[in-house]
Amino acid sequence: MEDNYKIKIGITQGDINGIGYEVILKTFADPTILELCTPIIYGSTKVASYHRKTLNINANFTMINSAEEASHNRINIVNCNDEEIKVEFSQPTEESGRAAYEALEKACEEYKKGLIDALVTAPINKHTIQNEDFHFPGHTEYLEQKLGNGKKALMILMNRNLRVALVTTHLPIRDVANAITKENIIEKVHIFNDSLKKDFGLSRPRIAILALNPHAGDKGLIGSEEQEIIIPTIEKLSKEDILAFGPYPADGFFGSEEYTHFDGILAMYHDQGLAPFKALAMEEGVNFTAGLPIIRTSPAHGTAYDIAGKGIASEESFRQAIYSAIDIYRARRQEEKITRNPLRKLYFDKKDDSDKLKLDSIENEDI
Amino acid sequence: MEDNYKIKIGITQGDINGIGYEVILKTFADPTILELCTPIIYGSTKVASYHRKTLNINANFTMINSAEEASHNRINIVNCNDEEIKVEFSQPTEESGRAAYEALEKACEEYKKGLIDALVTAPINKHTIQNEDFHFPGHTEYLEQKLGNGKKALMILMNRNLRVALVTTHLPIRDVANAITKENIIEKVHIFNDSLKKDFGLSRPRIAILALNPHAGDKGLIGSEEQEIIIPTIEKLSKEDILAFGPYPADGFFGSEEYTHFDGILAMYHDQGLAPFKALAMEEGVNFTAGLPIIRTSPAHGTAYDIAGKGIASEESFRQAIYSAIDIYRARRQEEKITRNPLRKLYFDKKDDSDKLKLDSIENEDI
Repeated sequence: MEDNYKIKIGITQGDINGIGYEVILKTFADPTILELCTPIIYGSTKVASYHRKTLNINANFTMINSAEEASHNRINIVNCNDEEIKVEFSQPTEESGRAAYEALEKACEEYKKGLIDALVTAPINKHTIQNEDFHFPGHTEYLEQKLGNGKKALMILMNRNLRVALVTTHLPIRDVANAITKENIIEKVHIFNDSLKKDFGLSRPRIAILALNPHAGDKGLIGSEEQEIIIPTIEKLSKEDILAFGPYPADGFFGSEEYTHFDGILAMYHDQGLAPFKALAMEEGVNFTAGLPIIRTSPAHGTAYDIAGKGIASEESFRQAIYSAIDIYRARRQEEKITRNPLRKLYFDKKDDSDKLKLDSIENEDI
Repeated sequence: MEDNYKIKIGITQGDINGIGYEVILKTFADPTILELCTPIIYGSTKVASYHRKTLNINANFTMINSAEEASHNRINIVNCNDEEIKVEFSQPTEESGRAAYEALEKACEEYKKGLIDALVTAPINKHTIQNEDFHFPGHTEYLEQKLGNGKKALMILMNRNLRVALVTTHLPIRDVANAITKENIIEKVHIFNDSLKKDFGLSRPRIAILALNPHAGDKGLIGSEEQEIIIPTIEKLSKEDILAFGPYPADGFFGSEEYTHFDGILAMYHDQGLAPFKALAMEEGVNFTAGLPIIRTSPAHGTAYDIAGKGIASEESFRQAIYSAIDIYRARRQEEKITRNPLRKLYFDKKDDSDKLKLDSIENEDI
C-alpha cells in the first residue's frame, strides 16, 4: 500500500424517498473530501439529479458502469435501477425498496470483486426493502450472511469519544434478561476487543461492561444477573487478559463521564446503550459493522421521512461515516503492515507460564 | 404571602461519610444564596465543623434548637446527633446510617409543625440507614409513607430543559414488561401532569411517553406492549384532555432533541429514562419528589464515597436542588393565589357536554 493510496468507497443510495441522497450530495459537494477518497455511489443518476435539483445542491457527478471506471476527484455513480424509477418524498414505496435493494446487491458484488475498499450505506426503509432475497432486520445481518465468511457481526455505534456495542439488539424488553448469558457476553466482548485492536489501533483496549439491572442489581436486591452471570463473566474475561471492567450502572456511568475512561462500552440491550449514546453523540453518530472482513459504516440516523426533500437534513453523521470508514481502512492496513513480518517473541507475559523464555536457547536467526 | 417572604429550607445532612456536607457548605459559602432562602441544616455542628476544617471551606454557621430559632442570612444547624459521633470518610458505618436517620426524622417532625417550607436532602447510604423504622429503598418511599397523607409520590429527575419520570423504578429488567400496565401508566401520568401544572406553572403541559421496546416495537415485530397497552393508554389520556404523546423510541427521542418539545418525559423503566437524562444533565440534575404535599428535592448524585473528603465534589447539583425547591414553592403559592377566588366559569370546553353554557341564565353577580 502506498501512503497516498486513495481509498475507494462504495456508497449505497438507500431509500430514495428519504434523506439519503441529500446527505450524500451535501457531503461530496465539499471538494476537500475528494482528496481523501474516491466515492462510487450505487444508485441512479436520474434519482441523484432529481434530488440535486429539488434541493439545489451544487454537486456534479459522472456516470460509470462499474467501480473499475471510477475517476478520482469525481463523484462516480453506477446505475443500478430502472430508468423509469420515481421519487416520492417521504413515501414508503415498493419501488424505493427495490431500488435500495438493487443498489446494495450491486455494491456487494463489486466489493466481492475487490473493486471497492469499504462500504458506506445510506439508510434504508426496513419494511419496503424486504423481498425474497432480503429478509433481514437491517444491513448488519444481511452483510453478515452475504459477506461474513462465517464471521459474526457486531454493531458499534461511535463518535469521536464513544464506542458502544450491544449484547442484545432488536429484542423485546420482555426477552432481554433471558438472552443475557455468559456465552453471549463473551462472544460480543471478543469481537469488540478484536475490532478495537485491529480497526482502531488500540493495543490494549479497555472495555466497560454495563449492568443489566438498575443500580447494577444493588447487591442482588434488584435482580440476580449481575451476581450470577455478568460478574463471573468479567472475571473469566480478565483471566483471558482482556481488559473488561464493570458491571457499571448505566445511569451513573453516563452521568459521571466515567465513559471517557474506556475505549469501548458494552451495553446489555438496545435502549440502555443507544439512548445515552444518541443523547451524547447528537448529529455525529456513526454505525460501524465490526467483526466482518468488509468495512461498512453508515450514519446513525434513519430515512427521516419527516424532513425528506426539504433540504434541512444535516450531513454531519454521513460525513463522519465516510471519515470513519477511511480511518478504519487505514488502521487495518497499518495493522497488516506491522504484523506481516513479526519479530520472534523475545519476552513472555508473566501470566504465560507455558512457554518460558530461555535466552540461552534462542537460535541464531536473521532478525 | 408577602412577595419578599424568605422561604425556610430544611436540609438533611445525609450520610456524614460522603460528600453531603461538602456540597451543602460549598453552596452556602456563597452568601448570595442566603438572599433567596434561610437554610436550616438538620445534622451536627460537630460533624459540620469537621468537614469545614478538613475541606477548608469558608462558611460560618449558627447552632439552633429548632427552625423556630432560625436566623436569616445565616447557616442554621439543628443538632440531631450524639456529641460523640465520628466521621470516617468513604466508610459505610452504622453510626453514619443512624446519624442520617436522626436528621431526617427531626426534619420531618419540624416540617409537620410547619417550621420549614421545603426539604432538600443530602444523599444517604441506602444500606446503613435501614433500621426498625426505616426500611425503604430511599427517601421517596419514606416520605410518601411518612408525610404523604395517602398520596402517591413520583420521582422526577430534572434540570433546566428536561423533566423525566418513570413508570417503574427499582425493578429488575426481567420484571419490567409485566409491570407496564394501563393503570400504572395512567397513575404516573396523572401525578406528572398535576405536578407540571401546580409545581411548574404550566397550564397545558405536554408529556412525551416513551416506548417500552426498541424502535417502539416496530409495529409489533419487537414486542406487543406498544400496540396492546401503551398506545391505547395514550388515546385514553387524550380523551381526558391530557396532552400525552407517543410512544417514542427512546434512542431517537433523545438523539433528535425531540425532547426539547415536551414539558415532561415519562420513561417506562429506570435506565431508559435516567441513563440519557444523566448523560445530558451532567452535573446539574435534581431529583424532585412530586405528588406529595411536602416539597422535597435532592441532588441527583449519591454519597460519592470515592471522592469523599477530597474537596473535589461539585456542589452544582445540590445548588440546583435548592433553587428548584424555591421555584416550586413559589409556583405553588402562585397557583394558590390565582385559584383562591376563581371567577365563575364563563366558557365551557367543547368536549364538556355535560354542562352547557347558557349565557342567558347567568345570574347577576359581582365579578
